[in-house]
Amino acid sequence: MKVDHFGFSNMKTFKQRYLLADKHWDKDGGSILFYTGNEGDIVWFCNNTGFMWDVAEEMKAMLVFAEHRYYGESLPFGNNSFQDGRHLNFLTSEQALADFAELIKHLKRTIPGAEDQPVIAIGGSYGGMLAAWFRMKYPHIVVGALAASAPIWQFEDFVPCDMFMKIVTTDFKKSGSNCSVTILRSWDAINRLSSTGSGLQWLAQTLHLCSPLTFEDIPNLKEWIMETWVNLAMVNYPYASNFLQPLPAWPIKVVCQYLINPSVPDSMLIQNIFQALNVYYNYSGQAKCLNISETATKNLGSLGWSYQACTEMVMPFCTSGIDDMFEPHQWNLKKYSDECFKQWGVRPRPSWIITMYGGENIKSHSNIIFSNGDLDPWSGGGVTKDITDTLVAVTIKEGAHHLDLRANNALDPTSVLLARALEIEHMKRWIKDFHDNVRRQP
Amino acid sequence: MKVDHFGFSNMKTFKQRYLLADKHWDKDGGSILFYTGNEGDIVWFCNNTGFMWDVAEEMKAMLVFAEHRYYGESLPFGNNSFQDGRHLNFLTSEQALADFAELIKHLKRTIPGAEDQPVIAIGGSYGGMLAAWFRMKYPHIVVGALAASAPIWQFEDFVPCDMFMKIVTTDFKKSGSNCSVTILRSWDAINRLSSTGSGLQWLAQTLHLCSPLTFEDIPNLKEWIMETWVNLAMVNYPYASNFLQPLPAWPIKVVCQYLINPSVPDSMLIQNIFQALNVYYNYSGQAKCLNISETATKNLGSLGWSYQACTEMVMPFCTSGIDDMFEPHQWNLKKYSDECFKQWGVRPRPSWIITMYGGENIKSHSNIIFSNGDLDPWSGGGVTKDITDTLVAVTIKEGAHHLDLRANNALDPTSVLLARALEIEHMKRWIKDFHDNVRRQP
Repeated sequence: MKVDHFGFSNMKTFKQRYLLADKHWDKDGGSILFYTGNEGDIVWFCNNTGFMWDVAEEMKAMLVFAEHRYYGESLPFGNNSFQDGRHLNFLTSEQALADFAELIKHLKRTIPGAEDQPVIAIGGSYGGMLAAWFRMKYPHIVVGALAASAPIWQFEDFVPCDMFMKIVTTDFKKSGSNCSVTILRSWDAINRLSSTGSGLQWLAQTLHLCSPLTFEDIPNLKEWIMETWVNLAMVNYPYASNFLQPLPAWPIKVVCQYLINPSVPDSMLIQNIFQALNVYYNYSGQAKCLNISETATKNLGSLGWSYQACTEMVMPFCTSGIDDMFEPHQWNLKKYSDECFKQWGVRPRPSWIITMYGGENIKSHSNIIFSNGDLDPWSGGGVTKDITDTLVAVTIKEGAHHLDLRANNALDPTSVLLARALEIEHMKRWIKDFHDNVRRQP
Repeated sequence: MKVDHFGFSNMKTFKQRYLLADKHWDKDGGSILFYTGNEGDIVWFCNNTGFMWDVAEEMKAMLVFAEHRYYGESLPFGNNSFQDGRHLNFLTSEQALADFAELIKHLKRTIPGAEDQPVIAIGGSYGGMLAAWFRMKYPHIVVGALAASAPIWQFEDFVPCDMFMKIVTTDFKKSGSNCSVTILRSWDAINRLSSTGSGLQWLAQTLHLCSPLTFEDIPNLKEWIMETWVNLAMVNYPYASNFLQPLPAWPIKVVCQYLINPSVPDSMLIQNIFQALNVYYNYSGQAKCLNISETATKNLGSLGWSYQACTEMVMPFCTSGIDDMFEPHQWNLKKYSDECFKQWGVRPRPSWIITMYGGENIKSHSNIIFSNGDLDPWSGGGVTKDITDTLVAVTIKEGAHHLDLRANNALDPTSVLLARALEIEHMKRWIKDFHDNVRRQP
């Protein structure tokens, strides 16, 4: 794959990884389902996108999972890929979409039978945004896109910056009595305990942290706990699963069992917080201690995403401490930009994504399904109302982050079964339209 | 303007020139007509796009003419812009479209009243391709595009490579008895005459060339003459004009008056060819000699275009010598690529434009008018049949290169008057749809 699709002076190429399954593919009259890889190892995404495997037979589909550049094994400059801004310069959504376009053209050129088949883009989260944008920018290459939990409006001021954390809070509020209030109180408890050396020591011990705490670590500690609650909101699935971490069914309910009493002394509160955290970090019972520099599976490429968040993917987040269960925190673009410049030597362009892909004004496009679970904090920045007959929103009640993309499960709520059925219906219509159009040509 | 929209490590900016006319603009309820600048000085294009000036009052329109980067005064690296492939790396259609998008956002942000107005992209030739592609890629920014004489299919094998020169030949064939046959015979006459030193001297003298000829110059000489006939086909307007050169009305007819007799001795044939060339190069009577390194106005940036033709804009041309009036010449990509590498250190990507913008499969887009004159050699690679109700083709009988974009003229054929009326009708509908949609929103 070309390292730079948008310039000609750099002629370097790299190996881009993709996975292909053709067990159910019908050379004649089949289709191609193309997973627009997001910020992580493609094998992991492949194993967490059971929906595609479940529908392959029905759609006579070839499955393709394309790894996003700078993640997994698709490193444009090998081990040097993250060395500096110059090496990272080709990590953009535009380059990733061009990779997908070139890969599809390559597959159509080289696999007999593939050329005349319709391709559907499927992705979740950032990959869902890519799927939607891919259909918007390359409608000649994909007949439609299933964009699951794709927060395409989580930019600039399209949604209030506190929306995301409000949804997280609601999830906890609904999952157990006093749960969100207990978490809200925990921040001050941490602040008080961390004001002394013995308090810091006690905190580290009680939370079973792998490393001792200094006063300077406290913002990181709180950030880590906050991210844990966010992640739980994302993977609050109705059955035991292992996406970001191995977890029980409805993990927030399990977590909230430890957080029923907000009015206990600080030490008791933190012990309960530990029990709650331990559900997320040690459901398997294997963890010897908790590491505050890790919140999720290592299959996600946090380094690459940190760069993307510092360049194109500028999502303003804030908390009020009133409508949510967190300490108040304003969105400060100047500070954010300075931190990005310090870390990567780049400055974010907060409005670029909207200039490139359109904000709310996307109605001239077609054949995109935007699905969102109402439990998913990312649904706040997603498309949750139909825009036109062919730009449709599918809402999944009791659904967390792209639940619809996961494999069928006996414990799936009816809402996700309906969502998947509707998604399949749309995809089949796109395929039919494609064949009708082909036949109509001379 | 950012030098690189598609990467973040280069933070350089440059001054992009644009021209703005708001004499007829209505802040309330008006519109914005945006000329997507092509490969030349924007002032010159501005002065040759009378159509926009003619419709400004009727459309209550602000006119904006945006200069294309690397042309005119919009040089990303000043005088070093063409120094090498590294400096030229940001000369691509994608960067140019992003410039236009950012410029429109800037105008909407800074000119009170502009924000809520519909913008229509208008361009001719390469600028017509840019207008069409701009609507395809940024439909959230422009409500529609008038793509005049835009050969979006003059790539890969979408049209036969000899189509272009066949149309040139037809123009000459129709403009005078024996005209194309005389030109066809001229190549051998030149070949024979150039085989001796005295013949070369005679040729240079008879053609009034500014420099003496060597045998090695003969391919260039023939190339120059060939380009002259091509240019005449492009500017074969029904009235005296000054686009590429000052010319009389229907210049090919005037040229062909000297080319009525193919069966004369070589020396007579070449004297007649000189008379014909002299119409193109010396209609004003000012030229002291003819310079075979120049074929058209210096307002066109031939250096920049040569780079673009070596990278993205790879248009395969060939001649058969049977169906056209030229020496046979095959399209040879390998040779072309090697020449590009030698000149610029880059290699063309012949299928990239189709991957990026779609080939014939563009029907999911909307609101683009593709206009073509049937005399224009570029019409061969253009869209000359309606694709959908909103992707429409307008054919201008007796029309040369984007005649419709030129100012009204008493000698305009009815066909171009009808074309312009139809174009205005479409543009008004786009504007109405825009306002209807705005009103419909909550």
